[in-house]
Amino acid sequence: MAPNEQLTFYTAEYSPFAQRVHIALEDVHAKYTIHQFEQRGGKPEWYIEVNPFRKIPALTFGGPAVPADQPSSESVKLIESAAILEFLADVFPEANLLPANPILRAKARIFAEFYRNYVHDEFKDAFFLANPIEGIVAALEKLQRLLPPSGFAVGEWSIADIMVAPFLTRMSLFLRVGLGAYTKENWARLVEILGSDKFSRLRRYISDIHERPSFKRTWISDERQIELWKEHPGLRRKANE
Amino acid sequence: MAPNEQLTFYTAEYSPFAQRVHIALEDVHAKYTIHQFEQRGGKPEWYIEVNPFRKIPALTFGGPAVPADQPSSESVKLIESAAILEFLADVFPEANLLPANPILRAKARIFAEFYRNYVHDEFKDAFFLANPIEGIVAALEKLQRLLPPSGFAVGEWSIADIMVAPFLTRMSLFLRVGLGAYTKENWARLVEILGSDKFSRLRRYISDIHERPSFKRTWISDERQIELWKEHPGLRRKANE
Ligand SMILES: N[C@@H](CCC(=O)N[C@@H](CS)C(=O)NCC(=O)O)C(=O)O
Ligand SMILES: N[C@@H](CCC(=O)N[C@@H](CS)C(=O)NCC(=O)O)C(=O)O
Repeated sequence: MAPNEQLTFYTAEYSPFAQRVHIALEDVHAKYTIHQFEQRGGKPEWYIEVNPFRKIPALTFGGPAVPADQPSSESVKLIESAAILEFLADVFPEANLLPANPILRAKARIFAEFYRNYVHDEFKDAFFLANPIEGIVAALEKLQRLLPPSGFAVGEWSIADIMVAPFLTRMSLFLRVGLGAYTKENWARLVEILGSDKFSRLRRYISDIHERPSFKRTWISDERQIELWKEHPGLRRKANE
Repeated sequence: MAPNEQLTFYTAEYSPFAQRVHIALEDVHAKYTIHQFEQRGGKPEWYIEVNPFRKIPALTFGGPAVPADQPSSESVKLIESAAILEFLADVFPEANLLPANPILRAKARIFAEFYRNYVHDEFKDAFFLANPIEGIVAALEKLQRLLPPSGFAVGEWSIADIMVAPFLTRMSLFLRVGLGAYTKENWARLVEILGSDKFSRLRRYISDIHERPSFKRTWISDERQIELWKEHPGLRRKANE
């Protein structure tokens, strides 16, 4: 399998799941074509050929060079961001998206699992559904405990960090500008708690993510991010306005 | 890293997440010690050393041979079933828990992701929360579409099948005996729909799972399974009584 097969990446500017794949494509220095959808929902008919479930991200791999909106039946169609990250780690081993040591690989996957299973829904509940903030605070505290004293989730940058990066950075931004379903009081408390000494390790981690070149290259500006998200029904309240 | 390091597996009879790890340990022909907790919840203090979040499954790897309830600080502590399966695939490559071909590896992970992201919650919603059954029916139909005409998710048995096996088999059993939060009408409809021709491929898949030796060795009897689950608050209704 030659990693110089054609790669076409289907994405949209706002999408955190798609950003995972985008970061990884940059990290492995892949040559790829981007097809960017302009809005949420409503995918064109031809896209069913790429992803019958019509979600982004998706990646086509191999087959003839064709325009992105005329996908070939000969390419392999890859969906689900977490699976695509593992795929890129497998076909570009020299990029070290996962460490070679099986114990460190396991730790990277445990960190990502932890985010998915115990943090992600709390983030959505607090920011999009106005649930009490205790859940997200407790979850972030546990996630922080999994971090080593410095560096990324398993020391060097890996899939673990890519899995959480698009979400932790959006969470920070939303919080900074008061975008969220939370009440003004809960917003202020969350800003205070996450800004306290107790969360300094997590803040350091999020700022290290922001410095990562592959993250920078795939993060649209804060202004554009806010513009795209403030239209989201769950985020209509802006606590600081 | 020698795969003949000590392995201690923490589990409980009822747990589908723990059964995933149990199946994989059998598939790789590992030598391991089992520590079985007798009830849901309420883990002893010493278990925090193994999993600070007190959940099962967990696996300790390496370090000195010690009694399971006196975990050594020198062993590696592994948690999160999905991460543990990948770990076992990494350290026992000859067991082929994942195919060698990166595209098939990706397909295995896509199948597992699909179950986790789109089927699992629908199963819980219909069986434990009495939600309408349309959700689980549609999700199972899509999962079925990802199956090849015969065999397991990517042909040969893999992590993909291990991820879903404990859940699809419990779903079948609960449905067969009418264990679920659903109304009697919804139970009857679900039995009829999942028993129809439309779902013959999925039924074949579930029966192939039941035949897998590693599954058989880790499945407690139907009677015991029912006994353990009928105590679950979400399943208190027995539609066929
Ligand atoms: N589990 C999927 C989630 C993908 C997902 O939910 N994508 C959203 C965008 S972030 C989507 O495509 N929604 C429908 C749409 O935008 O048309 C993954 O990890 O790739
Ligand atoms: N995401 C975890 C889920 C583990 C989980 O939820 N385990 C349940 C049992 S199935 C548990 O330990 N619950 C608390 C308890 O039984 O004390 C995994 O995949 O391993």
